[in-house]
Amino acid sequence: MLPTATKTEFSVTRIRVRYAETDQMGVVYYANYLIWMEVARVDYCQALGFRYKDLEIDHGVLLAVTEANCRYLSPARYDEEVEIRTTISRANRRVVTFDYEMRSVSTGARLATGFTSHIFLNREMRPTTLPVQFRRLFGITER
Amino acid sequence: MLPTATKTEFSVTRIRVRYAETDQMGVVYYANYLIWMEVARVDYCQALGFRYKDLEIDHGVLLAVTEANCRYLSPARYDEEVEIRTTISRANRRVVTFDYEMRSVSTGARLATGFTSHIFLNREMRPTTLPVQFRRLFGITER
Amino acid sequence: MLPTATKTEFSVTRIRVRYAETDQMGVVYYANYLIWMEVARVDYCQALGFRYKDLEIDHGVLLAVTEANCRYLSPARYDEEVEIRTTISRANRRVVTFDYEMRSVSTGARLATGFTSHIFLNREMRPTTLPVQFRRLFGITER
Amino acid sequence: MLPTATKTEFSVTRIRVRYAETDQMGVVYYANYLIWMEVARVDYCQALGFRYKDLEIDHGVLLAVTEANCRYLSPARYDEEVEIRTTISRANRRVVTFDYEMRSVSTGARLATGFTSHIFLNREMRPTTLPVQFRRLFGITER
Repeated sequence: MLPTATKTEFSVTRIRVRYAETDQMGVVYYANYLIWMEVARVDYCQALGFRYKDLEIDHGVLLAVTEANCRYLSPARYDEEVEIRTTISRANRRVVTFDYEMRSVSTGARLATGFTSHIFLNREMRPTTLPVQFRRLFGITER
Repeated sequence: MLPTATKTEFSVTRIRVRYAETDQMGVVYYANYLIWMEVARVDYCQALGFRYKDLEIDHGVLLAVTEANCRYLSPARYDEEVEIRTTISRANRRVVTFDYEMRSVSTGARLATGFTSHIFLNREMRPTTLPVQFRRLFGITER
Repeated sequence: MLPTATKTEFSVTRIRVRYAETDQMGVVYYANYLIWMEVARVDYCQALGFRYKDLEIDHGVLLAVTEANCRYLSPARYDEEVEIRTTISRANRRVVTFDYEMRSVSTGARLATGFTSHIFLNREMRPTTLPVQFRRLFGITER
Repeated sequence: MLPTATKTEFSVTRIRVRYAETDQMGVVYYANYLIWMEVARVDYCQALGFRYKDLEIDHGVLLAVTEANCRYLSPARYDEEVEIRTTISRANRRVVTFDYEMRSVSTGARLATGFTSHIFLNREMRPTTLPVQFRRLFGITER
């Protein structure tokens, strides 16, 4: 879909808060935002024109998380629709960082921002480089 | 530990309810009881004298769930200690059923009862039989 | 949307399997099917013409699970789209049972079937009856 | 237990990796480390001499997460025992930050480090200050 991936491009994901994702404080439990980030970056890959699943299966390349961060600005609540904007803030042959912004669809309020950094691993769980044909998609110009 | 596994024997597991396991109703979300059952049946295997992990890694035998059932009697709450009694109610070379009873440690109240039925799968995810050396442990007398 | 709720009517929910929902066996972890059932029955309520959330907030009525059952027929895998057909198999003023059938959208294979039974609770977590205006929606003819 | 809480003191928590916590990569799914942090900071409170639950129930004070961070150093695996060392790196009347270090018990390898920052909320979910009697426990000397 997207001709090239640059910092200015982003994908949009919508999820609806599940009952399972709330806790007794009456809001979404904080670890679940990281699950939403995973859903969002899979959608980002889809927007770039490939399925993350195929990267794993066909190319034997796994995207392993090295760091995750989330700032919680306003609590998400049950049954609320949440929109996640995802972009790549940094990418080279060995690492990639996704940035996320989450908003309530009904109020527009920012719920959270965050990022996840990843390295590429092969099936033996050792660091590898992103296959050449994917580099342009991730906005990587280096060889 | 246990010389033989028969219907009358059981293992005891204690877990403490995590905040993550509650929902906005203020009690434990119902799917989490199935996670506790998993923790409990791993402990049951341990009580039988082997680690479930080794069954997977060393023998390539997976315990795949074919049915799960839980009756919710009294809600479990955050930070509560829960005791799970686990036993095998049925076992042969191809299938095994675990029964569970969960109680509040502080009040003694029964929280839930349930069972999980399983078949043995090999690494190719096809039905197989339990290796001979494990059969006696599971109370299986057939050849 | 639906004029009346009878046993022959059902709602259809589609979810996509999240990476978080898989386990090291390479398939969906068994407790997650119960989370999908929750998503599906909320959609069923929506199809009946109300939001489950409003039942809790506006009417102070909670749908507490008394029993859950799932038969696992064929494993669901990462990134697979799953269709859940939900219907009410039994309902009266005090209890309701939802039936679920889950299929792979791409292959049509049945993945699982199951049910959840519920009682209606008030905010004090005591049994109550379903408010009159909701009874017809649930196919309850009794007074 | 601990007479005073200062930066040099820490609590130790041990958890065993659940099957439910793994994903199809064969290692622990990254969001679950945040759940372990929650278990660990509850234990930290316990080590300080109070139960987090009582802070919520008796004092109406909730510890709401404002930021969470985790660096993943080495993957945790199924059935592995993980030791979490927790300490408070910053605390005043309004905010508190917990630091965590996770190690494999069997190998001693560092698995992850992270922190969570929190503000104190009252039952109306508005910012409040930590009750005076808890301040010394958290190493807070200000009035």
